[in-house]
Formats: sequence, C-alpha cells, structure tokens
Amino acid sequence: MNGNTFGKAFSCTSFGESHGPAIGVVIDGCLPNMPVDFELINKDLQRRKPGQSKLTTSRNEAEEFEILSGVFEGKTLGTPICIMVRNKDAKSSDYDSLKDIYRPSHADFTYQEKYGIRDHRGGGRQSARETVARVLAGAFAKMILQKLGISIQAYVSQVHTIELNQAYTQLDLDQTESNAIRCPEPNTAKTMMEAIEVAQATGDTLGGTISCVIKHVPIGWGSPVFDKLNADLAKAMFSINAVKGFDLGSGFAGTKLKGSQHNDVFEDNEGTIHTKTNHSGGIQGGISNGEDIYFKVAFKPVASILQPQESVSTSHEAVKFTIAGRHDACVLPRAVPIVEAMAAMVLVDHYLRNAMLNMQPFA
Amino acid sequence: MNGNTFGKAFSCTSFGESHGPAIGVVIDGCLPNMPVDFELINKDLQRRKPGQSKLTTSRNEAEEFEILSGVFEGKTLGTPICIMVRNKDAKSSDYDSLKDIYRPSHADFTYQEKYGIRDHRGGGRQSARETVARVLAGAFAKMILQKLGISIQAYVSQVHTIELNQAYTQLDLDQTESNAIRCPEPNTAKTMMEAIEVAQATGDTLGGTISCVIKHVPIGWGSPVFDKLNADLAKAMFSINAVKGFDLGSGFAGTKLKGSQHNDVFEDNEGTIHTKTNHSGGIQGGISNGEDIYFKVAFKPVASILQPQESVSTSHEAVKFTIAGRHDACVLPRAVPIVEAMAAMVLVDHYLRNAMLNMQPFA
Amino acid sequence: MNGNTFGKAFSCTSFGESHGPAIGVVIDGCLPNMPVDFELINKDLQRRKPGQSKLTTSRNEAEEFEILSGVFEGKTLGTPICIMVRNKDAKSSDYDSLKDIYRPSHADFTYQEKYGIRDHRGGGRQSARETVARVLAGAFAKMILQKLGISIQAYVSQVHTIELNQAYTQLDLDQTESNAIRCPEPNTAKTMMEAIEVAQATGDTLGGTISCVIKHVPIGWGSPVFDKLNADLAKAMFSINAVKGFDLGSGFAGTKLKGSQHNDVFEDNEGTIHTKTNHSGGIQGGISNGEDIYFKVAFKPVASILQPQESVSTSHEAVKFTIAGRHDACVLPRAVPIVEAMAAMVLVDHYLRNAMLNMQPFA
Amino acid sequence: MNGNTFGKAFSCTSFGESHGPAIGVVIDGCLPNMPVDFELINKDLQRRKPGQSKLTTSRNEAEEFEILSGVFEGKTLGTPICIMVRNKDAKSSDYDSLKDIYRPSHADFTYQEKYGIRDHRGGGRQSARETVARVLAGAFAKMILQKLGISIQAYVSQVHTIELNQAYTQLDLDQTESNAIRCPEPNTAKTMMEAIEVAQATGDTLGGTISCVIKHVPIGWGSPVFDKLNADLAKAMFSINAVKGFDLGSGFAGTKLKGSQHNDVFEDNEGTIHTKTNHSGGIQGGISNGEDIYFKVAFKPVASILQPQESVSTSHEAVKFTIAGRHDACVLPRAVPIVEAMAAMVLVDHYLRNAMLNMQPFA
Repeated sequence: MNGNTFGKAFSCTSFGESHGPAIGVVIDGCLPNMPVDFELINKDLQRRKPGQSKLTTSRNEAEEFEILSGVFEGKTLGTPICIMVRNKDAKSSDYDSLKDIYRPSHADFTYQEKYGIRDHRGGGRQSARETVARVLAGAFAKMILQKLGISIQAYVSQVHTIELNQAYTQLDLDQTESNAIRCPEPNTAKTMMEAIEVAQATGDTLGGTISCVIKHVPIGWGSPVFDKLNADLAKAMFSINAVKGFDLGSGFAGTKLKGSQHNDVFEDNEGTIHTKTNHSGGIQGGISNGEDIYFKVAFKPVASILQPQESVSTSHEAVKFTIAGRHDACVLPRAVPIVEAMAAMVLVDHYLRNAMLNMQPFA
Repeated sequence: MNGNTFGKAFSCTSFGESHGPAIGVVIDGCLPNMPVDFELINKDLQRRKPGQSKLTTSRNEAEEFEILSGVFEGKTLGTPICIMVRNKDAKSSDYDSLKDIYRPSHADFTYQEKYGIRDHRGGGRQSARETVARVLAGAFAKMILQKLGISIQAYVSQVHTIELNQAYTQLDLDQTESNAIRCPEPNTAKTMMEAIEVAQATGDTLGGTISCVIKHVPIGWGSPVFDKLNADLAKAMFSINAVKGFDLGSGFAGTKLKGSQHNDVFEDNEGTIHTKTNHSGGIQGGISNGEDIYFKVAFKPVASILQPQESVSTSHEAVKFTIAGRHDACVLPRAVPIVEAMAAMVLVDHYLRNAMLNMQPFA
Repeated sequence: MNGNTFGKAFSCTSFGESHGPAIGVVIDGCLPNMPVDFELINKDLQRRKPGQSKLTTSRNEAEEFEILSGVFEGKTLGTPICIMVRNKDAKSSDYDSLKDIYRPSHADFTYQEKYGIRDHRGGGRQSARETVARVLAGAFAKMILQKLGISIQAYVSQVHTIELNQAYTQLDLDQTESNAIRCPEPNTAKTMMEAIEVAQATGDTLGGTISCVIKHVPIGWGSPVFDKLNADLAKAMFSINAVKGFDLGSGFAGTKLKGSQHNDVFEDNEGTIHTKTNHSGGIQGGISNGEDIYFKVAFKPVASILQPQESVSTSHEAVKFTIAGRHDACVLPRAVPIVEAMAAMVLVDHYLRNAMLNMQPFA
Repeated sequence: MNGNTFGKAFSCTSFGESHGPAIGVVIDGCLPNMPVDFELINKDLQRRKPGQSKLTTSRNEAEEFEILSGVFEGKTLGTPICIMVRNKDAKSSDYDSLKDIYRPSHADFTYQEKYGIRDHRGGGRQSARETVARVLAGAFAKMILQKLGISIQAYVSQVHTIELNQAYTQLDLDQTESNAIRCPEPNTAKTMMEAIEVAQATGDTLGGTISCVIKHVPIGWGSPVFDKLNADLAKAMFSINAVKGFDLGSGFAGTKLKGSQHNDVFEDNEGTIHTKTNHSGGIQGGISNGEDIYFKVAFKPVASILQPQESVSTSHEAVKFTIAGRHDACVLPRAVPIVEAMAAMVLVDHYLRNAMLNMQPFA
C-alpha cells in the first residue's frame, strides 16, 4: 500500500534517507540454502557508488554492507534478510541553504505537499541514494539467476545525442565494464565521456538511455493480464529516479513496421521451439518465450545542475540560488547496476511465482 | 500473485475467456453512495467494441453489461461490484483449424507451455477481448474522477509512419471522437484511415501510438519509491496487449535535452505553485505536482494478419496456414478507451491510497 | 485492502448481496488441468443451502451454479474461475419493515455507519448468504486437496449445552452426514435436534461449536511468524459470521496442563518422524508437522430471533418490532461445509505458497 | 507471500534470528509528522524483556533500540521506519548440544523440514525473541492510537488453573503493572506467582490466558467479509508463539446462551447509539460498533521445560536430553505487551484502511 515494497514472492522492502543513519532493505522470499556471494554484493555496490571516476559525484562512501538477519554460516536461511549500508560521508550542511527552497525538477515540492514534512538533507528519501537498497536486494536476486544460468547485462546505449548504432546482438557486451561510462563500444564511450566533461565544466547535466539484455530465461515466466513480465519490468524501470521512457523489444520503432514485418515466426530447432526474429523482445502475452529479453530505459538529465537557477521558496517567494553539494553530471554509468538489480528482482519474483505451476498434480 | 487483479485500494479482478460464457470484473474498493452512470459504462463499451466501423473487426457484440452485485437503487454500496458482459457472437469454429498451431507473435505458445492447457477459441484468455473487463472497471474509476473534476482524454497520435506533429497543448482534443480513428487532427485522421484501408486490403496490420492527457490531478498522489504514479501508469499501459513502449512527459526525446533545458522551474501563481514548463509530465518523485499528466503508448501492429504465414504446430511440425476469423487491421482506435480505463484505475487507486495522509491527526 | 479477497496464492474474491442478482466468487490461482468435480460443488451447495430440513430456514434456493470463466472442456485453465449462484427465492418484502431498524446483534448499524448506505434486503452483504461464495471456492480447493490425499471433515460438536464427550479420535466421522444436525454421534444428534426444536418453538435460537479434523497434510505447510498456518486458520474461521471463538489442538483446555504434560514427544516410525501425542494440533511454529490438524469453532446463537425485540431506528428512536423472514433456529448444521470450505482454502493457499521451497535449486 | 509482513496499510516487516546480529522491523505506513515517543518504545521493550524478575529467563538484554530511518528531528517522515535491537547476551554455546535434536513441541523439526536449514542457536527465527520486532512496531501503532484517544490494556487473566473470576468491567486495570505477573487482582497475582515458582522449582512450565480490553474505538473500523476486525485480531493473536485459543466477546461461553439472552439491544444515549450489553465484544459484522473490544488469548505452557526429555535426532535416532539455556517457566507476563502490540497494529491498520471512506465525495 505504501509503495516501499517491491515484488510479491521475492519481496523487497526498502528503507532509508540519504543523510539518515542507513539505507537498507529487507528481502523476504529469498530461497534457503543459498551460499551468499559477498563479492557480488560488494561489486555491485562499487559499480553504483559515488566517486568511482571523475564523471561521478565526489561523495565518498565506503559502502560497507552489514547483514542483520537471514544468513547463517554463509548460507541463506529462507527467513527475511535485512542488509544495510550506513551513510558515512553525508555532508548535510551542503543542504542548509536549500532547506526552504523547492529545487526545480526535484521532488522537494511534492514530498512536502504530500507528507507535510520532509528530510531536506541530501534529498532525504527522494534521493537516488535509496537505490543502494535496490542494488543490495538485486544482488541476492542475481545469485539465484546465476544458479539458474540466466545472465543480465545492462549498458549505456546513449548519452545526450550520442548513440550506439549497433543492435545488442552485434555488440561485445563484455566490453561494458572496460570504461567508466559502461558503454560496450569503446570509441563511442570516449565520445560520451567527452560530452559529459563538457557538460560538467558548464555545471550542466546530461541524460541518455540504458539498454539491458537478459539471456536464458526459461519459457513460462510472467503472469498473463496485469502482471505481465513486461508490465512488471516497465514498472520496475519507471520506479527508478529520472526514468522517463521504457521500450521493450521493437519498442517505439516497432510501431513503424507492418504486422507482416513484425511477426516473429516460430520454428523448431532440434526439439525446441524458437522464433526466427525477436521483435517481441522475449515476451509474448506477458510470458517469457525463451528468447532474449531486451529493453531500453530513458533517463532524463539529472535535475541538480550547478548553474544559477530560479524557483520558489516553501513560503511561495521567488528565489535565485545555486546548488552546491556533490552531484553527477550524468547518472547513467551508476544507474547500470540499478537497472540490472531491478530486472533481476522482477525475474526472480516471477520464477518463484511460476513454481506453483511446476508442481502439476494434475499433469 | 496470479496477476489478474490490478490496484491495491481500488482493486479490479478480471475474469473471462474470449469465447467462454462471459468477460467481467469484480471491483473492490469503489466508494459507496456513488450514483452509477450507466450511460458512461455503455459509451466506453461501445468505443471499445468490435464492428464500430469498417476499420475494425466485424465481430458483432451487443456488449450489454449486467451488474451482479454492489449496486443498490442506482448507487454503489461500497461492497464488491461484479459487472460482466456475455460473449454472444463468438464464432469458435473459425478457430478449429488453429487449435494445434502456434500463431506467430500470439501467446498460444507461451500459454500452452506455462499452463499445459489453453482455450484456443478466439485466443481464450490472451485475447484482447479481456479488455472489456478493464473498460467496465475503468468506467467506475472515471465516475469518481469526474466527481473530483479530473479529466482523462486519450487519442491516436500515430498510425504506422503517420504522426501528429502538434503537441497536445495545441490540439483540440474535443475533435478526438469526431472520426473513426480517434485522432484529434481531422486531416491526419483521414490519412491514417487511408493507410489502414490499404493495409487491410493486403491482409496486413498497422501499429502506432496513443497519447493520453490527464488534467486537474491534485498535488500529492502517488507513492514514492516503488509505487510511483509514473511506475504504476507504466505497468498499467504495459499490461495492455500489444504495447511495446511507454513515454512519460519529455520521454525518450527528453534524453536529448540538457539539465538546464529540461528542469521545470517553479513559480507562484496566485498562491498556487506551478512549473513554467512541464517536461516532468505532471509527476515529480513519483508524486503528482498538479500539472497535466501526459504520456504516450506504443502499440505494435497486431499479430493476426490475414496473409499466409509459417509456423510450427503443437507437435513441433512446420506448418503453413492463413488466419480466418475477424480481426482489426489497426487496433488503435479501439484501444483509446482501454488506455483511458487503465489510467483512470491507477489514478483512483492512488487517490484512495492518499486518503490516509488526508486524516492528519498530527498536523 | 477492502477485505473481500481471501488467500494470497489461491485467492478468492467474493461478491454479492443476499437479495441482489447473484452471489459468487472469482478464484485466482487454481491449478490448471484439473478435472472439475461438478458433483462436489453441488453437494456442498446442498449441504449449505437453506430448507434442507425442518431445522433450517425455509428460504428455498435451488442453488444452481454457473461457471462464467476459467473452465474449458471440463478442466481448469489456470485462469480466473468466476462461479456464481443467482438469488431466486429472495422475499425482499419481508424486510420492508426492517429498513429503518437496527436489528440487535446484526450488522445493520455498523454497515450503515461505515458506508452511509446499505442494502437492507435480507441483510445485504452482511447476510450469511455470502457464504455461498465460500462454499463455491472451497469446492475447488477441496478438489486439489483430494488429489493430494488430504481429507477435511467438520461436524457439529456442541449445540447449546449439549456436547460430544468423545475426542475426535474416538468418533466415527463417517456418521456425520447421517443426521440433519451433522453430529457424528447419533444419540447426541437426536438430543441436539430436540433442543433446537424447543428453541424454534419459542422463536429462540441456539449456538454451539463445530469441530474440524484434517488428515494427511504434508510436513512443511505454513509460513513462520505472521502467516502461521494456525493464524490463517484462525482468521478464516473468524471471518465466518457469528464466530466468537477458535481453539486449535489442546486449545483453552491445554492452558491447564503443565509443559511436561503438554509437550509432544517425537519418535521415529519406520523412517517418518511422528509425535506420540498431538496437543500441538498438527502445527508447530506455524508449520504443519504431519499430524492431524484439528480445531474447534464457537458460533454464537444467531441474532434473528422471532420474539418481540427492542432497538432503535436509524433516526435514533426507540422501537419495538418482531423479525419475520425465514431464519434458522440453529445455524450449525449449515455452517459445517462453510468451516470445511474455509479450511480447504487456507490449506491450498499454503500448499501453493510452499511450492517455491520445493524447487530447491540450492539443495 | 512469505509471511513476515503484517498489515496492509500499517505494514510491518519483521526480521531477525534470536542469536543473529539483530531483531528489527520495517514499518511502512506510519503517519507523518508524529512526534516519536521514545519513552513508550523503551517502556514496552522493558515489559517484554527477559530478566525482569525471577519469574522470567535470566537472559539479560539491555534492549537498546536504534532507529535507522523514517524519523527526522524527532518526528516521523511518513517514510519507512526501520528500528532494531541488537542481540547482545546470546549464549549460543548453550545450544550446541541441541543442534541435532528436535526439541519436543518446538519448531526445530518443522523448520528443518520446510527450509532444509535452520539456525539452531536460540531457536533462530522460531524463537519468541522475534516478538521484539512486534513490540517495536506496536509502540508506533500505540502512539497513533493514543493521539486518537484509544486505550489498549492487556493483563494476565489465568495461570495454569488459577483464574480471575471478575469480568474486566469490575477490575481495576491500573493494577496490572503493580506486580510481576501483570495480573490486575493483587491477591490472585500472588497465587499465580507461587504456582510459577513451584513449577520453576521442578523444571516445569505453566500456560494460561491473557485478556485484553480496548476502549474508545470509533464506529466503523474493520472490513466486512474476510478482513473482519475480529478476524484480523484472531490472526494477530494466533501469530504469537504458543497461542492455542482466541475468544472474542462472549466467546466459547456465549455458545451456551440463547439468542434472546445473547442479543445486544441498541439504545440511544444522548444522540449516540449504544448497546445495553456487549456480548458482541465491540464488533458486529466485522466492524467496530463503538463499544469496548475485549478478547482472551490462550497460551500453552512453554515447551522448554528443564526436565529430562525424550525425542529424536535429526538423523532419526532416539535421544534423551535436558535443555539448558535460560527459559521462562511462564511466558505470560512478558507476553502482555506483545498482545497489546499486535492488537494496536490491527487497529491502526483498519483506522488507515477506513480513511478512504472518510473522504466521502459522494456524501
């Protein structure tokens, strides 16, 4: 009801404010007996963390996690896993001057109106720092998917007007982590980074897109009608701060094909039914069909520009101000593990939900 | 868990197969004492119904609804409302030859794999006929929104490569229902209809986009973090058959703006805080900010082309076949009320969920 | 949120008013490919139905059910099953004189206060006629349990001050349906029926208890902490009209044993671990342990006595009145299938919820 | 789905193992702007805590809580509140010898069978130590109820065969905290304590009942049909370890009254409608009617007796053993705040759920 829990079977409840004591999550529904891959948790925290490169905010969080429950002798118990990261390098004083200002395109105004109170320090609960919780939960989801042989790889596919032209099938996705922008095409990556540096120099920010490819999902995941696998992926992505668009398979471009061009023809391939093309993006009728699931997510340029801005104060007066604080000129490279984490949670949720149908007492 | 219920506070459980006895919905959470606008229910059923024009399938359903519960002397009781439409003009024999064929880009294959059984007649539960349930529930949601002074208007904004160029703010949305394609620009509507007729003549199908504009939503609806108003709208739209993309506010196009161009500056307008621009699409931090909410939904061309096709049978053999049955060459005009219905349900759900915060014992 | 849905994995949404068009339920989560036992549905409807014997109300409903969705060629599809019974013998005029009176110990007053409107005819939604929906859903749950070899048998164990003295393990539960009161001890049954007839003659009503025994539940069903199997059974029983007490295993009597007397000692029985005694009632830590689950439910005497009564009107005036209508002097025999239905739903819900743990990718 | 979350609108997710790092809870749905009563949290933790008196286990936990999120400058933010207590005095070595033994009437066996793994130290997640989470969440619920003028008072009404004879209306409930057993009748309290000491001396344990009285609940809380206020209270109580019975209002005793004796007659009292008697226990049709809500909960004697016992090992061998560790001879006094906490959560949940109906756009 209150919107801080995601997933029905693999259920994650996020908590924490940006400058409060901690950010964390309770995962309810993680399978028991799973060896916890502490390295994986740490790796994704580092991929998301600020201060990785000169492209990102200089807030310097060690991002050390603590597991408070649900793990015993290195294995999951099947009980709720509470895992958290303490906020250590919060510089709340940076926000003192913003206490009474509604920053443009931030959620200061809507939080204040909705709740009648807000923690203005670092954006409080509206801060993208909340996504630490998602990365923590996503790491557990990824452990399950790894065991099942499923891979998830996200990457930056566009920054401002600079786009990858190759389809994912032609890219070497292993190159993604080879550069700070997480773009699998090294040359394009370089151009993107230059554009970000230019924006940074002028106190401006850039948006773009992140693409994601998921391989080896079994046939049959996803619920028909409202909880389609694609619908849950769309919600998952749109729950990430700054997301303005979602495109699955052929997406918006597919609207310009005719049915005869768009239909994915089935064929049998050594006993397994496949489609020759994959405009459907691996999902038909809300249910995975065994093909690659791929999608693209649009991120607007982040709102915390460092140029002088106009706005109104909480008492409705016109104000001019400049944001200090430490902010990313382009959030995209740090959002890559967040996109992966949310996708992983959706998949594991539907894996578990599909378990009922695996029992088949009437088959 | 099983994906046939939508909404938490205004909760709709859909049931029915295309050629089964009926399609219907149970609405749990509709406010009591509401005079039921039977005309509105009927009007939206007619807007969604097949056989409206030569553009749409010739299946001829009277679409007469029956209310089984929850309404007494013309008013809602606050108890569950079950409302249904019986399927009358189902021609199941049209589907006999398709019983053992997996139609390309349909969900025959994934349903069969997931459930081990399917009602092949008319596509069974995967049929877009399921959306009758959504239109029925959406009508009740619209009644609540009307009382609150909120308007929802969807319209066709693109068919194949033919697009509206005007932004919604420049359009006369009252023109939407003036033509069979539900496009508010009459000239463009004509071009769209011609394109559909050409496709129809060759047994082909066309996709496109539907845009939707919602006005006068109060500030404060939507839950932060996972159940953002935009996230729930994204899920709602992606739960509609054939949807491949969703774009809120500035959407994918907004990724090509810089932060300094994209930020929506606040100003006070006679005591009310507004934004000068609305790239945010009326939602900030997942919460409505009082501006217009607008979004765009991509629909792929429908899969039921009437040309000869290849596929495999349920026993994995290669087959050639041609779909008979009665099918739309372009689903977009009939999907307009479905988009509105899903949007209305999301809004009412968040209206009711926000009620808790209105009590304010601590204010 | 609105309390008309029961169960998370096997999820049943009830609808209908006593004198409205129909009472029904949507079952979401029934396994696919299950042959529907129409006889079982009918049998339980007949066991619940009014007019079975001179002990029960003379309202005469044929109780013919109609399945609107989810069943194809006699088998479940895995899609939502909507099943309903139309109300035919409603005599709403019997209730005209009660329209403005709050009947003592009925829910007229609380419904009116909560919703500001109510369907007074036959008690509307508060009527025990709503339990038709539960019996319908319970029948589907029973079909699954039968396939799994699990039996559920409820019976009347007390009417007013007349109690069975034998523990369930000594009774011949097959005798339950041999008499109109559904008491497995024929002599006691006779005494009970005489007491009911005496009450009936004076326009009075009697309460009592129903006991229930469930055999062959596998080890491991039930969720720890809040959704304990016993907690969900308690809720299920307390959701039935007129229930005032619930007692599992040793129950209230067990509070007078010492720990050394109450503990159930484990022993190995040919490879299977059993307990020598069963004070736990088949559930430990909220999880089934493989022993018989047994419990007892207290029903107050029904409120619709046929003697003159005092109350207040909706306009707060003191009134004297006598209920006409057709009412049971003792609701217990008709409540036996309702207790079974609710228990069956709880069990199937936890069977399905436990499915996730059966997958064991990490075992 | 996984049973570690309680409540729909006021939603509490519990985490933690007895000898793990911490026990805690995330509360989602607490109203914003509420001044946090830190004293109240502390007081209830102390009432629940071990080592309070010679009656209770000597485990000595300081029970210092830490709030990780959701509170800013002493007030709630409306965002999730994570609050936890670290486990400090865990003596896991006490449990080494029990690692491979299924203790009688504990959940060792069922947890192991369900999950294939368990944290045996201190009973892990099955330990009553989990109720720390409930007391923490309940304290926040109590703060809301206090503001609304609602009081909740639980007390020990029976230990073994020693019962209070007075109805709650005759008791001075303010005496409850005057003695270590939390019984409002000082003389009876003394007898109860003597009985516990005798049991303790022989390594035995005693059960009993806790009663609870809730005053000044407004009319209209509770959802009809499945989520009746009484049904949710029954579930709440049965979710507490060792509970075997629940009795609302007249309860099991009421089954021996006739309808003419049991009916609660309405009368007008200076403009407010009341009932002359209150056999209904303050709830009619699942909805509060403004009268006192009162109920009784049966607790079996705790399973951890200190006498030699028989059981089987995890490898199915017969074993003899004696539990060491620190255990309560009678859990009842420490369970009093737990009963209150669970009741408070149910009430606040339904208070918030009823908020929707308070908006009344159609009134």
